[in-house]
Amino acid sequence: MRVLYPSLDPYMRGRMSAARSYAAPASIGMAMPGEAVAEVIASDQPGYAPGDIVAAQTGWCTHAISDGAGVRKIDPALAPVTTALGILGMPGFTAYGGLTVIGRPKSGETVVVAAASGPVGSLVGQLARMAGARAVGIAGGPEKCRYVFEDLRFDAAIDHRAPEFADKLAAACPNGIDVYFENVGGAIWQGVLPLLNKFARVPLSGLIAQYNQQDTTAGPNLLPATMRQLLSQSVTLCGFINYDLAEGHYPAFLQTVSAGIRDGQIRYREDITDGLENAPAAFIGMLEGRNFGKALVRVTN
Amino acid sequence: MRVLYPSLDPYMRGRMSAARSYAAPASIGMAMPGEAVAEVIASDQPGYAPGDIVAAQTGWCTHAISDGAGVRKIDPALAPVTTALGILGMPGFTAYGGLTVIGRPKSGETVVVAAASGPVGSLVGQLARMAGARAVGIAGGPEKCRYVFEDLRFDAAIDHRAPEFADKLAAACPNGIDVYFENVGGAIWQGVLPLLNKFARVPLSGLIAQYNQQDTTAGPNLLPATMRQLLSQSVTLCGFINYDLAEGHYPAFLQTVSAGIRDGQIRYREDITDGLENAPAAFIGMLEGRNFGKALVRVTN
Repeated sequence: MRVLYPSLDPYMRGRMSAARSYAAPASIGMAMPGEAVAEVIASDQPGYAPGDIVAAQTGWCTHAISDGAGVRKIDPALAPVTTALGILGMPGFTAYGGLTVIGRPKSGETVVVAAASGPVGSLVGQLARMAGARAVGIAGGPEKCRYVFEDLRFDAAIDHRAPEFADKLAAACPNGIDVYFENVGGAIWQGVLPLLNKFARVPLSGLIAQYNQQDTTAGPNLLPATMRQLLSQSVTLCGFINYDLAEGHYPAFLQTVSAGIRDGQIRYREDITDGLENAPAAFIGMLEGRNFGKALVRVTN
Repeated sequence: MRVLYPSLDPYMRGRMSAARSYAAPASIGMAMPGEAVAEVIASDQPGYAPGDIVAAQTGWCTHAISDGAGVRKIDPALAPVTTALGILGMPGFTAYGGLTVIGRPKSGETVVVAAASGPVGSLVGQLARMAGARAVGIAGGPEKCRYVFEDLRFDAAIDHRAPEFADKLAAACPNGIDVYFENVGGAIWQGVLPLLNKFARVPLSGLIAQYNQQDTTAGPNLLPATMRQLLSQSVTLCGFINYDLAEGHYPAFLQTVSAGIRDGQIRYREDITDGLENAPAAFIGMLEGRNFGKALVRVTN
């Protein structure tokens, strides 16, 4: 395969650490693992022909060989092929699965999500709106907030870098928070915590704010207050990895989201960096929130 | 009603604090609220006659009047009347509801519970055993641990006051932890956290270890490591109040547990303090783990 678009995703930070996780770290000397959109050059596997576009676990590289495991063909007529790494791929299903299976927003409830201009958060809010819920997005800086409010049509967008973030979040959630889709952790969780309603659900899919911290243990100790609130409000906090939820939900996801893209109800944005040699810098930028939309690399050489 | 046995329960600590919780605090000047076993002296309510034994929200007092709301008659032929405040009452249902609805232990899984000699923990472990799971109890001191292991027939009992608690807990859970019934918080959670298996369930019914702390925020910050583990192991942590779960489960609870008591499969222990004037000291002692079994007061005057 010729690799066209390697994906950059926050979960990859875990592959760069020896800490216990749901997947083994990348070993020294191997290419950084990850999914990419690629073009078949040659194949002895039935069903694949030169020129086919696929999504495959190629890692960060220009060419790759596969035995076919985990490879799926992409229909370029359905949507731009890069969406197979974003809104129609793993990040999209993370949003759909977490919100549908764990969050279960009801009409009139309030759903809050951070990194709301990114590939997961943007879909969480748009799906919440489609379920009749109030969608409140949190994003970094006025430009992203404007995009979340105007283009993605969330009910409100709050800049977590602005002063009095917690007060503004509370004002945007006059009836409290019923679903908080947690993908960042850190300071935003502290703003969300006191607003959680009785029986709130918290799908937990990522903690990007703490992935790069060398030491996360500097006080004060915020665990007792979190536990107290989860108890007193009967909150369910549920960690998940997207493929935990795939069984029984993936076909409905593809159908719902591709229909939403076609009829304009669901929008998305991509942030494409040219040149494989720029992947590390783009990855670091993504962890710092400098991307604006789903982060991808285009292999140009 | 003449009050016979006021109940002492950890949740009452929340009624002595202005912090936001699932119920309003006791107001200044009112009797400390709570359930008790009482005897009807006189009644104009149909179905109640002098001499009837009831469980009612009388508070800590010698006599009480009720409009009948929340009162339930107790059949003294079924079990000792005090069990209506313990294993056949609110604590028992907390154990049953949390384990059955949230914990859902499967045969061969490992269930861990703290305060294992108390009214909630003792039933959690015994129900886990009846479901075919391995039951590991945590208790304070060798006497309680002996009771948990020998009388309640848990598979293992670990003394959280002994040195190397975390190592001993790990050794008692060679296949990790699938269900941790959380009713204490604090240091025990830190021992449990690294042992949680993929898809572990954590019913959260109490945090007795932190109820009396004036300041729970002294570092290190333990929240990031908890969130990381919940994410990487796809753990579900679910706060609940017993009555959240009553609908549809209470009759099965009464049937299962009263049958278990009759045939000797389920055992329990009570810690009765004589004299209403000793209730405050007994309550403080319970928060410090000095009770041994369900804490009750017997009104003697």
